[in-house]
Amino acid sequence: MNKIVIFGVGLIGGSFARALKQAGAVRSIVGMDRSPASLQRALELGIIDEIGGDLAVALQDADLVLLAAPVAQTANILAALLPHLGPRTVVTDAGSTKGDVAAAARAVLGDKLGRFVPGHPIAGRETNGPEAAIPHLYQGKKVVLTPLAENAEADVELVAAAWRACGAVIHRLSPEEHDKVFAAVSHLPHLLAYALVDDIAHKPHADLLFQYAASGFRDFTRIAGSSPEMWRDISLANQAALLTELDAYLAQLTTLRAQLAAGNGAALEAVYGNAQQARQRWIATIEAAEAPPAQDKAE
Amino acid sequence: MNKIVIFGVGLIGGSFARALKQAGAVRSIVGMDRSPASLQRALELGIIDEIGGDLAVALQDADLVLLAAPVAQTANILAALLPHLGPRTVVTDAGSTKGDVAAAARAVLGDKLGRFVPGHPIAGRETNGPEAAIPHLYQGKKVVLTPLAENAEADVELVAAAWRACGAVIHRLSPEEHDKVFAAVSHLPHLLAYALVDDIAHKPHADLLFQYAASGFRDFTRIAGSSPEMWRDISLANQAALLTELDAYLAQLTTLRAQLAAGNGAALEAVYGNAQQARQRWIATIEAAEAPPAQDKAE
Repeated sequence: MNKIVIFGVGLIGGSFARALKQAGAVRSIVGMDRSPASLQRALELGIIDEIGGDLAVALQDADLVLLAAPVAQTANILAALLPHLGPRTVVTDAGSTKGDVAAAARAVLGDKLGRFVPGHPIAGRETNGPEAAIPHLYQGKKVVLTPLAENAEADVELVAAAWRACGAVIHRLSPEEHDKVFAAVSHLPHLLAYALVDDIAHKPHADLLFQYAASGFRDFTRIAGSSPEMWRDISLANQAALLTELDAYLAQLTTLRAQLAAGNGAALEAVYGNAQQARQRWIATIEAAEAPPAQDKAE
Repeated sequence: MNKIVIFGVGLIGGSFARALKQAGAVRSIVGMDRSPASLQRALELGIIDEIGGDLAVALQDADLVLLAAPVAQTANILAALLPHLGPRTVVTDAGSTKGDVAAAARAVLGDKLGRFVPGHPIAGRETNGPEAAIPHLYQGKKVVLTPLAENAEADVELVAAAWRACGAVIHRLSPEEHDKVFAAVSHLPHLLAYALVDDIAHKPHADLLFQYAASGFRDFTRIAGSSPEMWRDISLANQAALLTELDAYLAQLTTLRAQLAAGNGAALEAVYGNAQQARQRWIATIEAAEAPPAQDKAE
């Protein structure tokens, strides 16, 4: 590609830029960001070639635009892009929820709706900003595209090809399927981890408790180190699916509570054992599928 | 010390043996285990000097006995030891619950109760068996002793000195305090992780869900890879405290559910933000406290 414009030059957008450059898949990258300091740093680090100023200029003849800003900004950014969107420019995003993003696009883009291909790279770290951007973040990872009925297949393929150049594996789901899946395996665990740490932090003997928390607690709560604002937005954006998953989990916990109260060791062991085996199968599958180059094992 | 007898030559007992040997703190270690293969392997690996046969011989002139077998075996092992317990031998254990262990000792040991000093090393890995034993497992880690009123201070100190020789830092709690603390920071998280994986594994679209589970899910559920039998026993042994913590957590989740259903973003962000900050403070404290030698960073 000749020219890519990236809104948000932090971990996600910056790593996309670095990966495409390393693959020799793009000639020029223009960065846009709310933070002038981030833009300056991204330029210094060679993540972007140019800091975007005037939108008309930045978007002129762009092949692809990636929105890698917080999801709640999607509608505003799309509205700003709209008047300057040339006939060959495809727009995609990297948001963790897709139903709300698709709805925002539908509300804003009018007859240019088909030019927006929603997407979600399943990769991340606990670090942020241009310094955190690394070229192999997406190596062996999944990118879920959730195409709209209005998308031309060639435009979906352009987005898919860019992610493939980053080393990612493309999956397709509908926005609704996507949001249901990630409510279960990502959004609910975040809520549960935040809830546990907050619960403990509010107990009168919190200091004593934290003093004895060890590596199991550290791993279980690692995702509670994530950005509260980002996860507030995700929780609200995916409210219905998250409520469904939370209710299922509450029912599961209520059953387990009754089994524990009854001293039903066989029932507890059945749940624990089924979980252990399911997790072992999952780990074996995912490790085989992701089998990364040696430098990617750090994740 | 001249002679130590270890019941259970796996990760916990074997690492205790290796650490004491590396520190030059013991002359001879006798191993006992239900598994003849584990004993043979521990002998080959130099973890123990001798496989114990006759209990009277094994215990003769022993300075210290460590029980590192599953907690449910405590009463049986103590009953077997009792007739052969010489006047200078101190007994301790490494179980994850202490109220039940103290009760078992009280039920079995009669006027030798004072010779049993309950303990719990806060260290572990997901690996098991003699091969998993490493000399630095306890380096910089806490060992909680929960002395009984019947213990002589010199006997508590003998146990503490052995763990200190392994590099551990000694803490003291009552058995009841211990069990309340670990119900909150260890036993409940295990139950929650098992419950989530089991919940997902039972959904009709489980394969689809596991396909998109990523690194956050992996960390959150890591403790669901632990032994179901061991955690069944711990759950039952610490039933009352675990129920108290589970009920508090269910109340917290019910509140969060109402806030999510009401679209109360400020309330969600307050919980998430408080959790994130509490966790950051905790991580900073624990990293400073544990600051390990370079070779111990693998945990």
